[in-house]
Amino acid sequence: MGRTSSLFERYLDRTRRRIDRALDARLPSAREEPRPLHAAIRYSVFAGGKRLRPALCLLACESVMGRSAPAIPAAVALEMIHTFSLIHDDLPGMDDDDWRRGRPSNHVVFGEGMAILAGDALLALAFETLARAPQGKAGDPCALIRIVTEATGTGGMIGGQAMDLALEGKRKVPFRRVLSMHSRKTGMLIRGSLLLGAEIGGATQAIKRRFSDYGARVGLAFQIGDDLLNVRSSRKKIGKAVGSDKARGKATAPGAVGIERAEREAERLLQSARRIAPGLGKRAREFESFTEFLLGRTS
Amino acid sequence: MGRTSSLFERYLDRTRRRIDRALDARLPSAREEPRPLHAAIRYSVFAGGKRLRPALCLLACESVMGRSAPAIPAAVALEMIHTFSLIHDDLPGMDDDDWRRGRPSNHVVFGEGMAILAGDALLALAFETLARAPQGKAGDPCALIRIVTEATGTGGMIGGQAMDLALEGKRKVPFRRVLSMHSRKTGMLIRGSLLLGAEIGGATQAIKRRFSDYGARVGLAFQIGDDLLNVRSSRKKIGKAVGSDKARGKATAPGAVGIERAEREAERLLQSARRIAPGLGKRAREFESFTEFLLGRTS
Repeated sequence: MGRTSSLFERYLDRTRRRIDRALDARLPSAREEPRPLHAAIRYSVFAGGKRLRPALCLLACESVMGRSAPAIPAAVALEMIHTFSLIHDDLPGMDDDDWRRGRPSNHVVFGEGMAILAGDALLALAFETLARAPQGKAGDPCALIRIVTEATGTGGMIGGQAMDLALEGKRKVPFRRVLSMHSRKTGMLIRGSLLLGAEIGGATQAIKRRFSDYGARVGLAFQIGDDLLNVRSSRKKIGKAVGSDKARGKATAPGAVGIERAEREAERLLQSARRIAPGLGKRAREFESFTEFLLGRTS
Repeated sequence: MGRTSSLFERYLDRTRRRIDRALDARLPSAREEPRPLHAAIRYSVFAGGKRLRPALCLLACESVMGRSAPAIPAAVALEMIHTFSLIHDDLPGMDDDDWRRGRPSNHVVFGEGMAILAGDALLALAFETLARAPQGKAGDPCALIRIVTEATGTGGMIGGQAMDLALEGKRKVPFRRVLSMHSRKTGMLIRGSLLLGAEIGGATQAIKRRFSDYGARVGLAFQIGDDLLNVRSSRKKIGKAVGSDKARGKATAPGAVGIERAEREAERLLQSARRIAPGLGKRAREFESFTEFLLGRTS
């Protein structure tokens, strides 16, 4: 991230403001009742997130249909779901993180109860946003909701977090099981972001399958990269305690097979994704660039 | 409830098994991974709930179109949302209830983290169920999802719970504010259950407005009734500690204006609802009976 910014990072920078504006317009004002709830929601939504999932959704839509505007409501919904997961993951009953992106976690500022409700509300708001998106222009809303619930539910992000919790403190978790957990916890929503954009863009089944394959690989590599960052980075860089996974007895890729093999696995996945990228449409070069971006983050 | 069962209670009894079967078919098996998550979900969904909201949804649909089968997926989604709210409300960071329906609360059995995730998963599953319902037969799915998110989000149940939390320990909460909180926390989902059934049945705007008016009244009266039960009932009857609201400094209707005025307010609402009931279609008598059922519960 100290390097010259890549094609993908430039896309990320360009879209961040669009997403932020759309989020601001869609979220209830902090002056509206119940104020503490709305303040808690906005605190975490506007905490400096990269807006990676929304950007992937817009990029996929643009890659298929040449423009990304119809995917804005879906992109907003994805960031709401991502933020919901961060708020709940940080709770004392879950990962018990008091810090997130260099600021106190939601529950530290607003209390546990309000943090739970802020997460709940964001999940509901995400589905409301999808159901209220202008129809006809942006694909069948039921298809979109099915993509999002598949990525979020017990077979997706929430299920992955449950596996994470259940594996905590277990010794010798097989690598295969760590990868299955990571695929659900992180991979499914990243893949879902791409599928959502492709669906809105009107992609064919064949193209959607390519996005699915590409998304599964980059999504899994992203979480292995997170594990590696946790082992190596300084507190300053990731905004929370270093080596916190290990201290907490978390099942991680480097924990299961060591740093080097985890790196190799991430590289293998990213090279495979890179080979798929040229078939992803008009924005193929950005999708190639994304795999390089993740490779730079991992090694 | 020791009285001869009313028309409404007989309807409730008849539909309970249908709902339970449909819930069982829709929920992931406890043998599927992640098992602890699916076990936690099933523990609370099958904890002996009355299935009031599903029954109201089916009854409204039947009242409009003469049959209730098309409303089954929506009814299932409503019970998932209701169960999600009970699991989260009981958490230590929220109402901190170790008992629910005479059994240990979800977090007592499965741990806080798993309970949070079980609630999250039920909310996502509810929207998945709505989005996967056979289309064409059961109204515009986006309209259904909008009804549910309005009833659930920051202007509905979740917002009401946030107000509840924010008002805890406050002295002299104005009655008006308690009623506004109760309307959101409980009233909106009861009203939403009726609106959902009416929408699926193909009700006209005028009929939907009547269901909305009726639902707002019975929903608010229901929560005032809960407050009154909490003041008066024995642990055995409601399955949790008596007078727990007062001990916890909860804002309640009897707390704001005393038992008698709270009773009078519930009665006034139920009489008003009863006057609307005859205009609710083929099942008008059951809707009248429901107001009597609630009156019996309150006084």
